[in-house]
Amino acid sequence: MIRFGVIGAGRIGKVHSKTIASNPKAKLAYIADAMPAAAEALAAQYGAKVTSVEDIMKAKDVDAVLIGSPTGFHAEQIQAASNNGKAIMCEKPVSLAVSTIEATLRVVEKNKSTLMIGFNRRFDPNFAELESRIRKGEIGAVEMATIISRDPNPPPAEYVKSSGGIFRDMMIHDVDMARFLVGEEFIVVHALGAALVDKAIGEEGDCDTASVMMQTASGKIAVITNSRRATYGYDQRMEVHGAKGMLSARNIHNTTVELHNAEGTKADPIQNFFLERYGQAYANELNSFIAAVETGNRNPSPSGFDGLQAQKLADAATESWQTGKPVKVA
Amino acid sequence: MIRFGVIGAGRIGKVHSKTIASNPKAKLAYIADAMPAAAEALAAQYGAKVTSVEDIMKAKDVDAVLIGSPTGFHAEQIQAASNNGKAIMCEKPVSLAVSTIEATLRVVEKNKSTLMIGFNRRFDPNFAELESRIRKGEIGAVEMATIISRDPNPPPAEYVKSSGGIFRDMMIHDVDMARFLVGEEFIVVHALGAALVDKAIGEEGDCDTASVMMQTASGKIAVITNSRRATYGYDQRMEVHGAKGMLSARNIHNTTVELHNAEGTKADPIQNFFLERYGQAYANELNSFIAAVETGNRNPSPSGFDGLQAQKLADAATESWQTGKPVKVA
Amino acid sequence: MIRFGVIGAGRIGKVHSKTIASNPKAKLAYIADAMPAAAEALAAQYGAKVTSVEDIMKAKDVDAVLIGSPTGFHAEQIQAASNNGKAIMCEKPVSLAVSTIEATLRVVEKNKSTLMIGFNRRFDPNFAELESRIRKGEIGAVEMATIISRDPNPPPAEYVKSSGGIFRDMMIHDVDMARFLVGEEFIVVHALGAALVDKAIGEEGDCDTASVMMQTASGKIAVITNSRRATYGYDQRMEVHGAKGMLSARNIHNTTVELHNAEGTKADPIQNFFLERYGQAYANELNSFIAAVETGNRNPSPSGFDGLQAQKLADAATESWQTGKPVKVA
Amino acid sequence: MIRFGVIGAGRIGKVHSKTIASNPKAKLAYIADAMPAAAEALAAQYGAKVTSVEDIMKAKDVDAVLIGSPTGFHAEQIQAASNNGKAIMCEKPVSLAVSTIEATLRVVEKNKSTLMIGFNRRFDPNFAELESRIRKGEIGAVEMATIISRDPNPPPAEYVKSSGGIFRDMMIHDVDMARFLVGEEFIVVHALGAALVDKAIGEEGDCDTASVMMQTASGKIAVITNSRRATYGYDQRMEVHGAKGMLSARNIHNTTVELHNAEGTKADPIQNFFLERYGQAYANELNSFIAAVETGNRNPSPSGFDGLQAQKLADAATESWQTGKPVKVA
Repeated sequence: MIRFGVIGAGRIGKVHSKTIASNPKAKLAYIADAMPAAAEALAAQYGAKVTSVEDIMKAKDVDAVLIGSPTGFHAEQIQAASNNGKAIMCEKPVSLAVSTIEATLRVVEKNKSTLMIGFNRRFDPNFAELESRIRKGEIGAVEMATIISRDPNPPPAEYVKSSGGIFRDMMIHDVDMARFLVGEEFIVVHALGAALVDKAIGEEGDCDTASVMMQTASGKIAVITNSRRATYGYDQRMEVHGAKGMLSARNIHNTTVELHNAEGTKADPIQNFFLERYGQAYANELNSFIAAVETGNRNPSPSGFDGLQAQKLADAATESWQTGKPVKVA
Repeated sequence: MIRFGVIGAGRIGKVHSKTIASNPKAKLAYIADAMPAAAEALAAQYGAKVTSVEDIMKAKDVDAVLIGSPTGFHAEQIQAASNNGKAIMCEKPVSLAVSTIEATLRVVEKNKSTLMIGFNRRFDPNFAELESRIRKGEIGAVEMATIISRDPNPPPAEYVKSSGGIFRDMMIHDVDMARFLVGEEFIVVHALGAALVDKAIGEEGDCDTASVMMQTASGKIAVITNSRRATYGYDQRMEVHGAKGMLSARNIHNTTVELHNAEGTKADPIQNFFLERYGQAYANELNSFIAAVETGNRNPSPSGFDGLQAQKLADAATESWQTGKPVKVA
Repeated sequence: MIRFGVIGAGRIGKVHSKTIASNPKAKLAYIADAMPAAAEALAAQYGAKVTSVEDIMKAKDVDAVLIGSPTGFHAEQIQAASNNGKAIMCEKPVSLAVSTIEATLRVVEKNKSTLMIGFNRRFDPNFAELESRIRKGEIGAVEMATIISRDPNPPPAEYVKSSGGIFRDMMIHDVDMARFLVGEEFIVVHALGAALVDKAIGEEGDCDTASVMMQTASGKIAVITNSRRATYGYDQRMEVHGAKGMLSARNIHNTTVELHNAEGTKADPIQNFFLERYGQAYANELNSFIAAVETGNRNPSPSGFDGLQAQKLADAATESWQTGKPVKVA
Repeated sequence: MIRFGVIGAGRIGKVHSKTIASNPKAKLAYIADAMPAAAEALAAQYGAKVTSVEDIMKAKDVDAVLIGSPTGFHAEQIQAASNNGKAIMCEKPVSLAVSTIEATLRVVEKNKSTLMIGFNRRFDPNFAELESRIRKGEIGAVEMATIISRDPNPPPAEYVKSSGGIFRDMMIHDVDMARFLVGEEFIVVHALGAALVDKAIGEEGDCDTASVMMQTASGKIAVITNSRRATYGYDQRMEVHGAKGMLSARNIHNTTVELHNAEGTKADPIQNFFLERYGQAYANELNSFIAAVETGNRNPSPSGFDGLQAQKLADAATESWQTGKPVKVA
């Protein structure tokens, strides 16, 4: 039984709290949030206690800290948890600054802590199966990955301001999946972008429609396209082409019902957002983290290093978009 | 080069004339029709000559007669063509009376003529492939065939009066496919029906919505459902379940284009009627007939016997519907 | 909070216990089973108490009894629970004897108890949506329902002996769905069957491959086909054709991953059996029962009457198969 | 009736000759080829005459010249045909040199000739429908086009040497489709490439795996990916995302037959190459050219200008790949 302290009672904290509460190997012990009312409400729902971040770090009856606080707190909370001997599961990103991530990983390394980063899509049953079958050799050597990822609705322009921009805030998930699927490091990044959905996003210096091409040293290519808005739901597709075939994973409709009439055949809309689409992924992610804690695995998937590499690629994409030039990644 | 005389310049005569005219191994020599203007128009389109049915039968430069006249003339025209040494391709049915079919087949047998019946669906590339893969053993022993067949629009009640009823006029195609797919003779037929689409059809003593179950001596089952009207187009599906798996063939949409928006994912309507849906089937049917003529094959698929058996089953279905009792077929 | 006593700790008792334990409005209070070890194991898993059936019936801290015992006990346990003022959710069938069902429903009626029968498929999100859209008028007047239902593996012939036969044991689910979808009572039943999967099933006087056609007084038709074995998984499909269109619900694959290579495009197998396929259905079923209990709804869906009608139709199908004649249903 | 002189009796010349021969508004009058035997064989098949290129240009009974000769001859043959008052349908590309294309278009402009370039995919019924529905506004303002295009088998490295490279030889079709779908000019091109399929292609200075991102002045993006080899057939897919929805067109399988067994659900391979996949497109292309000739339309789709723009973009992609830098297009 792994006893969790959850930091953050916002949208993602709620997701993780629910997942922890329904996992027979996990116990939701404490919840902390800067807004006490939010922490209280969530704690009451699952029979957990409310306390401060500091107390979670020091609590003897906490084995693992789940960090779902705002991005700006991630690095220091990872370090504090590591220094207090806790295992850590932290939402992406560790930090918007690569140097901060590197400093944090050094602390984690020194303490030999288990740290896992919340790239939840690796745990989607469909994408996990796709990756597993690549690794089994079903399509031979990977040549090209294509990822299409669109959110149903754009965030307010206000949000965008502090988000780090579309490449660091949204595409970083896809960049991680590209690394996961292709299995090699990308060394060059080309990006294009435009504010076609909401001019206000453009006025904040960000874009809402973006594409990235990346290439590895051996020549493998990943192509990612993003939009902040898809009228048809949360578009999450990927395919990987290799020497012996191609593996693809498509969207999931709300139900399997189809209406056939003079207008054609109409399937249901696809699942609308991440709570539905990735509900099972969050549960599997937690299982994977618990297994890492139980076995003392200090290099889970996705690891702190995966978090670092994804951030470097997101930075490179941002720079490429801003400068109009490809950017090399060390 | 097989030289054809076509009898009938109506809807189906036009289909066959076009198919013959574009087949490099066939020549459309003559067309006959009770309405000379129809024959003239069709002949002019393809550079054929108009003549009488009698002259087609006797013409030395005719190798094969394609019979697309009204059902009432089929039997005597088959016999005449057979007696004149022609190969014969005849639209279904040979006759609405089993005894007439039997008499006709005796003539064909005596003259050792090649006779093929126009169950065009056997030549649809999809259904032909499905049958071929059953015969190759892909699904092991056949256990059950399911055929769903719906026309886009009901015929006028006036037409129904002389059609022989839905089982003989429409379902006979599906009954033939059931025999083709299952590969055994059915010995009992259960039918249900109702006039749900058009009351006027019911008033003519026919139904427009019907289902049939048939069983072979070894226990294999076929289930067929029909409607005279499907708002979504010409519904033509079948599947066969066996000991090792199931083979299915679905409908064909007008294009592969799909629209994805807040209402869902909308595919095009399916192909609307037999000219589109079975265009390739008619071309393949002709090739098969030509091959039979060239090789002197007197037992093509579908043969006169296939026509006879389908008619017996359609009669049995009609009787079962009318009496509310299952009917045995010899 | 509805407090449950669960009778039966076998396969279906485990399903319901898990569902009750994870429902925030339900409490799994007691479990009873003729085999104490089974009850103990299940109770330990969810923190429930083990007791006798009699004690469950009398317990003041039990609001509802969930009956998952062998079929032979259902009727008396429903009556006992009803006489003790409990709400009842009972697995299908109430009894293999219509007269016993009728006697049981009279007790339920007299006591004004809430009784719901476990036709879980009504609660599958796909089929529930399909039915809901029929009722909203999306396809106009219903004309024909087609249900294809195949189990992945046949039961041992030993099981078949006491099962009541395929129509009462397996097809009864589909018969209930046909009533649910069509929305009218069927008055005549035609059945065919054969033991094609396992001869031993035939030797027990049952069949493993079956089809049924049923018709309502207004002419609407339902066609159901069953097999006790499908190599490709748990085949659960249905479609309803109406005056304005057709609604269909297809199978669900294990994942959305597809492999494309020289052999074609290969999708995953479909979900293999009812625990996966209907996991959500069981949860929704429980919610629906709880809502009925909370609101005092004595006519939930599916009601005791629904259980009675399905049994009558299953009996009629059995008789039709055995006699080779259609059977009328009052 | 438009009388055609066909130049080139190779693979593409055969396609066009067949299409012309079966079009009721076209007459295949003459065929010319540097290898007289090839011309003779093709001419015999369709009852055409063999003559020289010069004679086709001057023939009074030729209305239109269809140029299917090697790329190096296209420009001069277009000019000769134009100077002789013929309408011209020319396979892509007009020339590998933009300056030569421009010079050729000046001649065509001066003579007011009808010139159409053979980007056959614009006439594929699926892609044509997709484009037509974009223009009707079904998806609102276009934001991003995604084109995936893979050939079944790589050409010999020998061929690659004189092909102009993958961007000019293969991707030029996709570049034209991107312009067609997006409806604006692209002003910047990013390309990546690698020889992952066949090292020998890399040794010839070309690549066999490539991706391109392009952007218009208004910010719209097109992403194209190519491979010279797909084990699963001729992969031809595209989708366009817009403010109100997304339109997609998928691959076409050989038949609709699907096999369901313990391994999953297996659909047929997709159509293997351009003769099958684009057979209808070639027929529609010819109809469109004939309509342009009949109406004197000097700006058909795709026009000489479309050929010029596609070549500029293919050149830019080649340069981007070779230099590792984005390339601007005037």
